[in-house]
Amino acid sequence: MRSTVMDGQPLSALCTPAMVVDLDKVKKNAQRMIEKFEKLGVKLRPHMKTHKTIECADIMTGGSRRCIVVSTLGEACFYADHGFDDILYAYSLPFDKVERCAILSERLELFQVLLDHPDALKQLRKRPLKCGRRWHVWLKLDCGNGRAGILHSEPEALRLAQSIAAADGVELTGVYAHCGNTYNCRGVQQIQRVAKDTTTFTMQFMEKLKIFGITCKSSIGSTPSCSHPVQDMVHLTEVHPGNYVFYDVQQSIIGSCSVEDIAVRVLTRIIGHCPHRNQLLIDCGWTGLSLDGAGKLPTGYAVIEGHPDLMLLSMTQEHGKVEPLSGKLDFNMYPLGSLLTLIPYHSCATAAMHPVYHVHSEGVLMGKWKPTRGW
Amino acid sequence: MRSTVMDGQPLSALCTPAMVVDLDKVKKNAQRMIEKFEKLGVKLRPHMKTHKTIECADIMTGGSRRCIVVSTLGEACFYADHGFDDILYAYSLPFDKVERCAILSERLELFQVLLDHPDALKQLRKRPLKCGRRWHVWLKLDCGNGRAGILHSEPEALRLAQSIAAADGVELTGVYAHCGNTYNCRGVQQIQRVAKDTTTFTMQFMEKLKIFGITCKSSIGSTPSCSHPVQDMVHLTEVHPGNYVFYDVQQSIIGSCSVEDIAVRVLTRIIGHCPHRNQLLIDCGWTGLSLDGAGKLPTGYAVIEGHPDLMLLSMTQEHGKVEPLSGKLDFNMYPLGSLLTLIPYHSCATAAMHPVYHVHSEGVLMGKWKPTRGW
Repeated sequence: MRSTVMDGQPLSALCTPAMVVDLDKVKKNAQRMIEKFEKLGVKLRPHMKTHKTIECADIMTGGSRRCIVVSTLGEACFYADHGFDDILYAYSLPFDKVERCAILSERLELFQVLLDHPDALKQLRKRPLKCGRRWHVWLKLDCGNGRAGILHSEPEALRLAQSIAAADGVELTGVYAHCGNTYNCRGVQQIQRVAKDTTTFTMQFMEKLKIFGITCKSSIGSTPSCSHPVQDMVHLTEVHPGNYVFYDVQQSIIGSCSVEDIAVRVLTRIIGHCPHRNQLLIDCGWTGLSLDGAGKLPTGYAVIEGHPDLMLLSMTQEHGKVEPLSGKLDFNMYPLGSLLTLIPYHSCATAAMHPVYHVHSEGVLMGKWKPTRGW
Repeated sequence: MRSTVMDGQPLSALCTPAMVVDLDKVKKNAQRMIEKFEKLGVKLRPHMKTHKTIECADIMTGGSRRCIVVSTLGEACFYADHGFDDILYAYSLPFDKVERCAILSERLELFQVLLDHPDALKQLRKRPLKCGRRWHVWLKLDCGNGRAGILHSEPEALRLAQSIAAADGVELTGVYAHCGNTYNCRGVQQIQRVAKDTTTFTMQFMEKLKIFGITCKSSIGSTPSCSHPVQDMVHLTEVHPGNYVFYDVQQSIIGSCSVEDIAVRVLTRIIGHCPHRNQLLIDCGWTGLSLDGAGKLPTGYAVIEGHPDLMLLSMTQEHGKVEPLSGKLDFNMYPLGSLLTLIPYHSCATAAMHPVYHVHSEGVLMGKWKPTRGW
């Protein structure tokens, strides 16, 4: 028998480890981002990669089920199957998935792909879309992030944009930059410097395109930059943050949010007392939290809510070792079976470990969200 | 549309990232372990935690669907639902799951739990089993591993064993020690020293029990120790290794196996060329491999099969960065769309990231295995 916890019960009714989502915080984080970019007149295209659920996508899109971005084709298919449309698959076109992308492009009103290499354009041209449809293509620029994308400053970038715009059966829909380099920032000032630079480089590129008679959309994004947008961002067509709906300890350290904004926790129970090692064992290992954040926090792999004196020292598959930052543990304070609450370092990584998220409002269970997985 | 690769196709037909399992190696690893312990006259109780699939469990149990060990109650329920029995839930009894354990104990022929604290025994006594059934309880000993278990040398261990044996409605089924400390070993000699010590401590404990008129089963295990069993292990009733069916780079470094024995890979494709950083981008991030193994290998997070000169430097959610150990990359050797094959550092952690494993024999796809998840 699987666990059969019902809505209306308290969080403590859950078997652990369990990922719990604070619905009120999710709604607040989502609404704040919607309002922020409504005010700026920039379209918000929320990223689904953090949660990968229908319910949370509904909240982030204000119920429209339109205008989302995904990190895998698996997500794209999942959302398409649930009535979502205007989906941007923001991942350098993988050559093994061209046919699946073509089918989605022919099926949805608006399915958009992204590329950063002339060979990818060749792949699209080898598979013309049926019924007079055209591939909707975003050019991925690297504006300093240093991962995917063609360098904004390289002449090849401009040439590739021209090739896309000129190609039969293909439309240059937009220019896309991910400012993941904001993750190296500390504080709003540093975040806004990266946001401003990324916006500037993107808009400079748009200006160059105009010289060649090319106009298209522009989009930048990341949770830090969109949590603290700079005025220049009004020139963009779209932004595409994602993590903000949950936030996490990492985002609070960067300066994107306060700890109070973080909408997710992992509930865990104490399953062992080890006085000879001055340690508690908890029932959350890396299958319940992920190994992300190693070496990043003075309190180990997570923040233990309400216990700033404790650290999550290490994890194996189903066990975590908790010990005090200093001094001797009073084991009477932590009886076997009692709950601890972990605030994840990286909510994307933690969410990826859970087949179900338990949603609550003020500690009362409201339902379950089931994410999609795979590619 | 999800990917619809059919059996009989080559591995290269798979969309990536994809976890692939070499069926011949799995069968060979399983058979070798079965024969090793048949010869020693010790019962093999294979652990399911690495793969969590029905198909692989069938191979490890020689089709009997009996005598397995699991790390989560979710696994126990999954296997029970598929006709497995004689299941040992080898995890310090979690107080939130007593009722679910009771139901399994009343439903299966033989469901066994484990504990290491007097409070856990109290929990069991508060929930007597129906129909005259008794709780089957293993006592978890810590024989040097330093995680869960009551220290074998402490008088409390003996007292707890006596309490279990004396309690109404409860049977002391066995004494269980996990020698996970073999994971710190390098080479067969060190592994066998830990295996010998663990066996000695366990058997000494059994002798002490006999003085009090208590006899029960004994079990130790870990993949390193069971891959190189010592003669003393003939005195044990059971062993409980699990990872051996897949093995991984970590096990080859410890000395449990050779690289040729490793039955799992992650297929990935090159999706980016970054000459300005002397890097390739691949479509495998931590969602496809896990972050386990950070800092452990000269080649980064994995071994890249056939390319000892390359390292997997870092990963984000869906991207990996690959660069040469030294010198300049020849990008012509790595066209976009071409495959690389990653040998995982820790197959348990990699398998936990995949909703499906693609099974092949000599590179020809033979089917899919779907693991269970959750607790």
